Amino acid sequence: MNVQEKVFIYDTTLRDGAQAEGVTFSPVAKIHVAKMLDSFGVDYIEGGFAASNPKDMAFFKDIKKENLKHAKVAAFGSTRRAGVDVAEDKGTLALLEAGTEVCTIFGKTWLLHVTEVLKTTAGENLAMIEDTCRFLKQNGKEVVYDAEHFFDGYKDSPEYALQTLEAAVKGGADVLVLCDTNGGSLPHEVFEITTAIREQFDVAVGIHTHNDSETAVANAMESVRAGATQVQGVINGFGERCGNCNLVSVAANILLKTGKTCLADPGKLKNLKQVSQFVNEQANLRDNQRAAFVGDSAFAHKAGMHVDGVRKVSQSFEHVPPESVGNGRRILISELSGASNVMEKLIEMGLDNIDRKSPEVREILQTMEKMEREGYVYEAADASFKMLIKKVLKEHKSFFELEGFRVIVEKRGKNEPCLSEATLKLKVNGEKAFTVGDGDGPVDALNMALRRALHEFYPSIDGVHLADYRVSILDPEEATAAKTRVHIESSDGETSWGTVGVSENIIEASWEALVDGVEYKLFLNEEDVG
Amino acid sequence: MNVQEKVFIYDTTLRDGAQAEGVTFSPVAKIHVAKMLDSFGVDYIEGGFAASNPKDMAFFKDIKKENLKHAKVAAFGSTRRAGVDVAEDKGTLALLEAGTEVCTIFGKTWLLHVTEVLKTTAGENLAMIEDTCRFLKQNGKEVVYDAEHFFDGYKDSPEYALQTLEAAVKGGADVLVLCDTNGGSLPHEVFEITTAIREQFDVAVGIHTHNDSETAVANAMESVRAGATQVQGVINGFGERCGNCNLVSVAANILLKTGKTCLADPGKLKNLKQVSQFVNEQANLRDNQRAAFVGDSAFAHKAGMHVDGVRKVSQSFEHVPPESVGNGRRILISELSGASNVMEKLIEMGLDNIDRKSPEVREILQTMEKMEREGYVYEAADASFKMLIKKVLKEHKSFFELEGFRVIVEKRGKNEPCLSEATLKLKVNGEKAFTVGDGDGPVDALNMALRRALHEFYPSIDGVHLADYRVSILDPEEATAAKTRVHIESSDGETSWGTVGVSENIIEASWEALVDGVEYKLFLNEEDVG
Repeated sequence: MNVQEKVFIYDTTLRDGAQAEGVTFSPVAKIHVAKMLDSFGVDYIEGGFAASNPKDMAFFKDIKKENLKHAKVAAFGSTRRAGVDVAEDKGTLALLEAGTEVCTIFGKTWLLHVTEVLKTTAGENLAMIEDTCRFLKQNGKEVVYDAEHFFDGYKDSPEYALQTLEAAVKGGADVLVLCDTNGGSLPHEVFEITTAIREQFDVAVGIHTHNDSETAVANAMESVRAGATQVQGVINGFGERCGNCNLVSVAANILLKTGKTCLADPGKLKNLKQVSQFVNEQANLRDNQRAAFVGDSAFAHKAGMHVDGVRKVSQSFEHVPPESVGNGRRILISELSGASNVMEKLIEMGLDNIDRKSPEVREILQTMEKMEREGYVYEAADASFKMLIKKVLKEHKSFFELEGFRVIVEKRGKNEPCLSEATLKLKVNGEKAFTVGDGDGPVDALNMALRRALHEFYPSIDGVHLADYRVSILDPEEATAAKTRVHIESSDGETSWGTVGVSENIIEASWEALVDGVEYKLFLNEEDVG
Repeated sequence: MNVQEKVFIYDTTLRDGAQAEGVTFSPVAKIHVAKMLDSFGVDYIEGGFAASNPKDMAFFKDIKKENLKHAKVAAFGSTRRAGVDVAEDKGTLALLEAGTEVCTIFGKTWLLHVTEVLKTTAGENLAMIEDTCRFLKQNGKEVVYDAEHFFDGYKDSPEYALQTLEAAVKGGADVLVLCDTNGGSLPHEVFEITTAIREQFDVAVGIHTHNDSETAVANAMESVRAGATQVQGVINGFGERCGNCNLVSVAANILLKTGKTCLADPGKLKNLKQVSQFVNEQANLRDNQRAAFVGDSAFAHKAGMHVDGVRKVSQSFEHVPPESVGNGRRILISELSGASNVMEKLIEMGLDNIDRKSPEVREILQTMEKMEREGYVYEAADASFKMLIKKVLKEHKSFFELEGFRVIVEKRGKNEPCLSEATLKLKVNGEKAFTVGDGDGPVDALNMALRRALHEFYPSIDGVHLADYRVSILDPEEATAAKTRVHIESSDGETSWGTVGVSENIIEASWEALVDGVEYKLFLNEEDVG
């Protein structure tokens, strides 16, 4: 048996991905993403710019404490400035200061850039490339050389483009990465040019593509077919302009469709959807419903014929098994599949004595559809969905009654703090529980008042904290009068559960999700409480 | 001079596109889209299924009254049923009944489908293909034969796959369309197989791809390179599962990057962005900010280096001129941007007398970085950024002073409505403006009070409305005590502008963005107001 050729995955979500419009990672999010990428099994994590950005420098320091299992961390920078000794070049020194195992530097391939943007000479540019690679190698770094605008430069002057790579090789670069910086190349060009480079250099070749022609993934795949052994890209493919090569699709295509391999453990491909969702969440982006492999629609079958086909032979309308990428098949607009989902929940709740064709199951489905039309989404709000089932089955018990709440937000002058106060009136087991809460904002104040009100009746609530709070505006064009969906994740330290609330009033939507979150916990504990 | 080879564009937005999850076109929308596609210059418009759908049959009738200028309308169906005389086959008769110039039928290529899904024989399937093509030709139709699962079938049994195409040719089909129905093929396979088919048939070859491997556009381009002269796809690339080949990118790639041509008038490519937006609007989909060629981010430059480069030579970071596809360049402001981006904004504001190395530019940059660390993001909040510049330059003038506000949200019982009321105290031109507002939620109420307070002093504000309102939770793990970023888009009907606010209190963050939005408008109008 042949050993499979390995393709190294170089992730630049935290650097090139962070250049996407609308994407900024908080320092905490950067660490979260890096740890997740490491456990997913990527080979390189480019953490940011070494020079320009104190936040990135802090990341390089912090990530060392995390003891990543597999991935090497790379700091990103450029060749030294023109006319400056490399040992005194600020940017190059910052690369060393980052203290990473790998340094990635980009240099100019395209003469247009050398003369018009850098305003230097063809010869000095070659010296800049060679000097910087050599200096970093002498300082013990693994050096990734990103040949910026490689394809445009090669098309303009193949001779000069090759000279820039030769300079990098002379300087000791470990890998030559061909960058389609402007994203303008088509797959056959990438294949041909990668092939030509592979024939002329013994050093490993990598590929870095952008999606401006909507061919970034194809371009990377064609480069890999031509022998590139490193793919640079971003989880979910966001990045400057139209985005970078999407590593989600690249990893799946390599592992499922070529004889090659990637990732520290290829078995981790089954976490692909989870990885994709995690990164979107940290980047504060919505999941793309139609994303290849991992989108909610990727294995959803709508047309009657397809549904019929897929039932008969799954591969008839599925290019790969959905479970191979952590996704699942969905049958749309089909009473049957709906009933299956409800049955699954009923079984989870120990209510397996209900028949799938019973009026109860039908009523649950109808109620769910009605709620979904109003904006509720239950996929991440399992607890709210189970509460809905209990309500339909008339098994829902209120642990308390709302008599009213009032939330006040007050600001007494331009430079005064903004104060939030909530008063809450509940009736619990026939007794009045009237409380006041304050907090950082109106929802925080209301949450505080709720906890205070329940404390003496249900002490188990003390151990529950809110782990996540998210807000979606459902019809943004309605502006501040739009419907709001609030998603809350509660946790008692051992397990966590999601709830959802919808209202034109964000406070009311939050209240709904807060109440579901607390009641769900009380249901779970009912024996202790009774 | 050679005559350029023409690639025919076959649009299936209204048929395969309509199979996308979440997409339904109203009858009126179908007519709108068809007329727009015609004036854009596509060659074929597939309007829907001839048999299964009364809405589609109504479309075929209605579209005749519109007298399309260029495009031919196609009705979609399948080969006759097994064991049925084609002249008595309901589906085939429905195709005639549709009364279109073109009939497109799909037939089975893959033996797996023939035996397992259709439950018929290899021979009968060939007869079904030939009979149906011949019958439609005899009835005067142009016949497009969609060879379903062509690539999977060919990989399974090239002999049988070729026999199915031969059957279509014998029946008189005008074009053989190779369909990658499951979207699982990679570009090089599509190139090789298209080449093989072109060598064996004199009939025109078309290509129909899906995006399950994120290579639909590349696959179509590779097929065109191998000689396919018809591309089937959907404007914006939505469709079943991960979507169809995106005709937006295909048209731009063909016209801007190959020696071939497409569209009735290639000059119409400059309407590409408009076409894309129109279809999304009719399909009730959001525009994809990062869409190739037409996305708002497609020519947006964020990193300082790129902005510097693009100012020096536009092609240095742009693969095609933005105006060639009806798009425009945008310079974004962000933590990664440098002095170049700030200069760009100063020039937009008419402040071009400030030197890029001046202390003012440095102070603007530092202030911006400080604000970004606090959670502000200026990319979509140009107006807030310009207000920040004015504040740093001490050119900011307050049009009013906040003396205080109080927002109350009250719910007086479980089933009572949730009421919101805001009281606002401003000082405007030395006069007190005290108002009360109510609304659907606390922010709506506050907005109402602000508008009322300003009405008599600045009547121009009456024409400003909020076009978008978005909320991001910056550190979701802090739950309800997390920092909130609010983004507001204001519009006066002619132009729109974005503002941003950040606070742990969502009301305060919203207030900040509301105030920037109003003040920006007043700055623009200053001459009228003064």
